Amino acid sequence: MTKYSIGLDFGTESARAVLVDTANGAIIATAVELYKHGVIDDYLTTSGEKLPPDWALQWPGDWLESTQITIQKIMSESKIEPNNVIGIGLDFTACTILPTLKDSTPLCELEKYQNNPHAFAKLWKHHAAQPQADKVNALAKKQSKNWLARYGGIISSEWLIPKALEIVENAAEIYQAADYIIEASDWLPWVLSGKLKRNSCAAGYKDNWHKNDGDVDSKFLSDLNPKLANLYSQKLAAEVVPAATKIAGLSQKWAKKLGLKEGIAIGAGIIDAHSALLGGGISSPNQMFMIMGTSSCQLVMSKKEVLAEGISGVVEDGILPGLFAYEAGQAGVGDIFAWFVKNQVPSEYQEKAKKQNISVHELLSNKAAKLKVAESGLLVLDWLNGCRTPLVDAELSGLVLGLSLSTKPEEIYRALIEATAFGNRLIIENFEEQGIKIERLVSAGGLSKNKFLMQIYADILQHEIELAASEQASALGAAMLGAVAAGSYDNLKQAIDKMAAKPKEIYYPNLENKTKYDILYTEYKNLVNYFGKQSNLMKTLRSLKNSN
Amino acid sequence: MTKYSIGLDFGTESARAVLVDTANGAIIATAVELYKHGVIDDYLTTSGEKLPPDWALQWPGDWLESTQITIQKIMSESKIEPNNVIGIGLDFTACTILPTLKDSTPLCELEKYQNNPHAFAKLWKHHAAQPQADKVNALAKKQSKNWLARYGGIISSEWLIPKALEIVENAAEIYQAADYIIEASDWLPWVLSGKLKRNSCAAGYKDNWHKNDGDVDSKFLSDLNPKLANLYSQKLAAEVVPAATKIAGLSQKWAKKLGLKEGIAIGAGIIDAHSALLGGGISSPNQMFMIMGTSSCQLVMSKKEVLAEGISGVVEDGILPGLFAYEAGQAGVGDIFAWFVKNQVPSEYQEKAKKQNISVHELLSNKAAKLKVAESGLLVLDWLNGCRTPLVDAELSGLVLGLSLSTKPEEIYRALIEATAFGNRLIIENFEEQGIKIERLVSAGGLSKNKFLMQIYADILQHEIELAASEQASALGAAMLGAVAAGSYDNLKQAIDKMAAKPKEIYYPNLENKTKYDILYTEYKNLVNYFGKQSNLMKTLRSLKNSN
Repeated sequence: MTKYSIGLDFGTESARAVLVDTANGAIIATAVELYKHGVIDDYLTTSGEKLPPDWALQWPGDWLESTQITIQKIMSESKIEPNNVIGIGLDFTACTILPTLKDSTPLCELEKYQNNPHAFAKLWKHHAAQPQADKVNALAKKQSKNWLARYGGIISSEWLIPKALEIVENAAEIYQAADYIIEASDWLPWVLSGKLKRNSCAAGYKDNWHKNDGDVDSKFLSDLNPKLANLYSQKLAAEVVPAATKIAGLSQKWAKKLGLKEGIAIGAGIIDAHSALLGGGISSPNQMFMIMGTSSCQLVMSKKEVLAEGISGVVEDGILPGLFAYEAGQAGVGDIFAWFVKNQVPSEYQEKAKKQNISVHELLSNKAAKLKVAESGLLVLDWLNGCRTPLVDAELSGLVLGLSLSTKPEEIYRALIEATAFGNRLIIENFEEQGIKIERLVSAGGLSKNKFLMQIYADILQHEIELAASEQASALGAAMLGAVAAGSYDNLKQAIDKMAAKPKEIYYPNLENKTKYDILYTEYKNLVNYFGKQSNLMKTLRSLKNSN
Repeated sequence: MTKYSIGLDFGTESARAVLVDTANGAIIATAVELYKHGVIDDYLTTSGEKLPPDWALQWPGDWLESTQITIQKIMSESKIEPNNVIGIGLDFTACTILPTLKDSTPLCELEKYQNNPHAFAKLWKHHAAQPQADKVNALAKKQSKNWLARYGGIISSEWLIPKALEIVENAAEIYQAADYIIEASDWLPWVLSGKLKRNSCAAGYKDNWHKNDGDVDSKFLSDLNPKLANLYSQKLAAEVVPAATKIAGLSQKWAKKLGLKEGIAIGAGIIDAHSALLGGGISSPNQMFMIMGTSSCQLVMSKKEVLAEGISGVVEDGILPGLFAYEAGQAGVGDIFAWFVKNQVPSEYQEKAKKQNISVHELLSNKAAKLKVAESGLLVLDWLNGCRTPLVDAELSGLVLGLSLSTKPEEIYRALIEATAFGNRLIIENFEEQGIKIERLVSAGGLSKNKFLMQIYADILQHEIELAASEQASALGAAMLGAVAAGSYDNLKQAIDKMAAKPKEIYYPNLENKTKYDILYTEYKNLVNYFGKQSNLMKTLRSLKNSN
């Protein structure tokens, strides 16, 4: 009898549910539902209060409503027997946290707190806690906290401690009223099953948890703010478990709401990007999963724990139990190409694209594809949004070098793409220099659909790149969590090996381009060293800019 | 009784005549006439033969025809008594040379040679003699010729020796048939007066003449090519005299053609850019005349002979007798802004400019004018057409640094303008480091009409900049030559002091911007040193580009 698992993928704007055959990973049905209140970043939905810039909230009820609607849809569409659904897994944006009562009720649902924005869920991209992040970083540096190195030396304003400190400092009554302040990826399973556990992925990457060292000590928290001392001991008081661990069974109440069988397994969640790695078919160490979008994120697992330069995080059990999961990143990739198209492409090109009924990106790609390697004489530093890995420096900036009076827009466009590929190669070499050999590359994300770009990446990385099969890799990964929690597989690795689809396409490096790209890459590294480490010029320009 | 001088200004596309009051420099009448055959760079006008790329010829008869038409026009328009015209002076593009018979007849006018392109006048921008220039430079370096340093270490393909060698190598019969191979600025006075003399301006800047050392020795020429040995001794056998020296009187034949009095003074000519300095009112050493156009040229006179880094030329008597005239240059200025507008400005800006009925340049300037100094965080190296002074290196390239995802086109536009001003400041400091203090700045040329740009220049150069009054500065300077040749003044300095108009406008530096611009300029110099002298990156990129 065929058994099914449901994967829930909670994104920034919508939730997606997939119904998956646990034997082979086939996706039987899919449904997507936008959150009713979307991202709350303008006016508070309850009071209508105007929100300051950098705020981004969500309404937890939206997640539940989307869950109900999408699961009902996939069940009715697929017409399968509900009894054959054996588990539910989920992935979520992170760090997205919310304060709740002991019974999981979000504080924002209480009349008393409904008009307090700090009672809402704070979405990953809520950036208002930057002052708090600055304090966390300053104190951690001062106290030489060893966990800082696991995050490339910087705690982001997006993460738990800054966001919690923001509540303490600006809404002490909310902090006090909250029995829990937890990740949305832990709240959802709690609501569905009645049991609260913390998933090691979000806990490790966003909440500073470490498998051996545990959470951040309360002394540090109390030095930050005495009220914060009980953050982990009380507000996050729950066992940390790897993704796919069965938390409990689906409650009677929710079984009824969803039209599913009571007691089916609810698996511990995972961060959405990391779930895509599962769906993308990576089940072994030393394989890099590249998620290429507006920015890029590189995930790789290893048996070793090393401190590679500028990694965004390393977490034991962060993805697969028993392995150290590393995350590295490029702060700007697709965003850079979008900036170029918006700001640096003449009307002649816009009109040509319109006439050919293609996008300006496509027109530029077509023109750029005709260029030979190094023909433009250009070399770019892809730091228009700063450099994440390896330099972890937001004050660095972009550079275009080699311009002449005959330089054409498509030449710069190509050089921008090449620069992001050089940046990716630098990240790979950074891992390899630390003894983590990268043996396989799998790509996913919006940019991985761009054939022209992918070929340049293969040529520059001098490695085959497999294109992950599923465009619903995250949701498929979530379904794997449900299947493992339900006991269909002994472990997640087995589930991945059986349920992930074969790559859709493989890009092979063109060896003809190797010599020239090697020279360009060497020069790229020279620029990285000069402007990233030796010269202070970019810092000087930034400080002049900020002084205005 | 008021006396008049005629100034003739021979440009690339047309000739201009002005009738000027010798007492005060007032321009009484002006006429412009396009050359009938224009620049001959496509098909040879006689045979219809297709010309190779980089060729640019002229038909000497066009110059004479334009002379006749424009002088007739200004005389009839002004209605002044021809007897009151006492002299004619002229300026010309250089190096523009032509082969002639002993009686001044251009070889291209002989039926025998009329279909040979080497018999035509070769215009300054005829660039086909690059292989010959390479040979001249290689041999001069090998033989450690001391004159090389007077030209920043490089002889241009535009100059006399490469162009003459091109004739020798490719049309030996023309070289042999030519009694003379001379500058157009010497040919014209010869035709009008019957006497041939060489002007020291063209001779010094373009034909390698030196007041003490004389011409290039025939040993060097014969090492280049045995046939070339007699270039100076025969083909340029004429006395070298400073501009404004009376060559002879107007011949009877030409007096009749022009409707002027026989015997009036014909002055020795000058290069067009240098003539503008006269018209611009510079009559003393240590004053810089900045001609700002597609590229920029800086002229300054001094009592001292020094070898400033990367100057385009230093010539004793090059402009005023008794002074050393220096020329420096920036290979790309207005060309860079034009490149930007053509290639890097989005349609949104084009449409806005159209709506406001202004040029895109004006729109960008308006937007850029609202920016504060250093607000964009950008810094540019203005080497999109290479660097002339001080590095004399055509293989260098442009660089834009400090880009972010919020960088706007007007920010880059302003940074490009600032970079050219930094380049100009570098040239000034380069002179001052050699002991040639720059005490006054006068600007001319198309870009000097741009108020926004001029204010940035004043701020960055931290010096008042006077805007030369006359838009016909070259022609006015030429008229001064005629006045001096006719004896209205004892010397050219006197003529300039009396005849040049007061500056039209003065730009004063905004001292508020000083500190920030000083920091940016220091960083600009750091980039110049790093990419111009230390790093080999730009050369590597160029050589990869050329290998395609």
